[in-house]
Amino acid sequence: MSTVAAGPRIVEVRRNILKRNDEIARALRTRFQQAGVFVVSLVSSPGSGKTAFLERTLTLLNRTHRTAALVGDLATDNDAMRLARSGSPVRQITTGTMCHLEAAMVESSLADWDLSQLDFLFVENVGNLVCPSSFDLGENLRLVLLSVTEGEDKPLKYPTIFNSADLAIITKADLADAVEFDRDLAERNIHTVAPDMPILYLSSKTGMGMDEWIALATSHRPLGTAPQST
Amino acid sequence: MSTVAAGPRIVEVRRNILKRNDEIARALRTRFQQAGVFVVSLVSSPGSGKTAFLERTLTLLNRTHRTAALVGDLATDNDAMRLARSGSPVRQITTGTMCHLEAAMVESSLADWDLSQLDFLFVENVGNLVCPSSFDLGENLRLVLLSVTEGEDKPLKYPTIFNSADLAIITKADLADAVEFDRDLAERNIHTVAPDMPILYLSSKTGMGMDEWIALATSHRPLGTAPQST
Repeated sequence: MSTVAAGPRIVEVRRNILKRNDEIARALRTRFQQAGVFVVSLVSSPGSGKTAFLERTLTLLNRTHRTAALVGDLATDNDAMRLARSGSPVRQITTGTMCHLEAAMVESSLADWDLSQLDFLFVENVGNLVCPSSFDLGENLRLVLLSVTEGEDKPLKYPTIFNSADLAIITKADLADAVEFDRDLAERNIHTVAPDMPILYLSSKTGMGMDEWIALATSHRPLGTAPQST
Repeated sequence: MSTVAAGPRIVEVRRNILKRNDEIARALRTRFQQAGVFVVSLVSSPGSGKTAFLERTLTLLNRTHRTAALVGDLATDNDAMRLARSGSPVRQITTGTMCHLEAAMVESSLADWDLSQLDFLFVENVGNLVCPSSFDLGENLRLVLLSVTEGEDKPLKYPTIFNSADLAIITKADLADAVEFDRDLAERNIHTVAPDMPILYLSSKTGMGMDEWIALATSHRPLGTAPQST
């Protein structure tokens, strides 16, 4: 087995990028808190169902709360158009060749939004289990999604991103039997890299588990808890 | 929509990395050709089924050809152990936090292998639809795998990696009906970003499509075409 390390110049450049990102993320977090908006970010592989999950979440939350979303992709604004059907304001962040969102992209995308008019802001990262892990976006809650079709081994192979998240959501749970998903093994692997990680099972297709997720999300942001705007 | 570009210093560092990678890849390609080994690389999202596909491929090819594999992952050597069951020599490349393989990693992993003893060398990249696209590994054929469970839109959202590949393989085809996979839409999306890309449908679970793939692979490397080692 060979382990390959980046050269010193790359390491230094990377360290500076992360440091600058952390500063912007800290400022964002303060701004979110002052505005009383609860910010949830989503990371996963491409195709784990982030957008389907978010579409269903926005539609359900919009009955009682004010929501908005930012969605990151290398190319296309298909996801933003899809999510806009929920009635929430949605903006696409197109990253070109970058494999993750950075706090500065979130900041500039929010430029003219009055955050005090929102209860929840969702930030969907680029589909990638590696690059987004080290970039704080100022979020309050980071969800990592893992679909039953991807295999139970992914937490062990991408430990950093599972470690950086607050909640694991197992998606496409309606397909669990069809792919012989081993629930015990998946949970054991998640808890090997993130011992206290809570895990929810969901299907955006059938709606299974959505009530539990919405109850959890709104427990973080009950109605009437926003700071009064003056 | 906002488009975010990297700063000039990062662009320059990145350009130098790619230039150096291309030089090593060129040297590798010459070495592969002289040894008479046909090199196939695999890229895809995490969980698209690269390892299952490769396990089945090695087992089938080993009846008539000499094969070996390199597998890239951030952490664990699970895939190398799994693939070694095929009887092929397999080496794991552990990348740590790097989201792709580079030609230098392939070169150093091959250090003591006598390539003239091989007909096929497979190189499984880190599961990632972004980062591996720009890194030439000296391969003869690059496969991009897309599972039916990931959604038909992925080629449009990750155009560069589809563009960099020579052949698209749609995996987990046995689940196509269960996930209501739209074959026409997927093919149209692939051909939007890579107009002449050939597409194969496969299931590593049922074996569907494997004969066609093995026929295609061996057409590139018929028996008895290796240069004679002296």
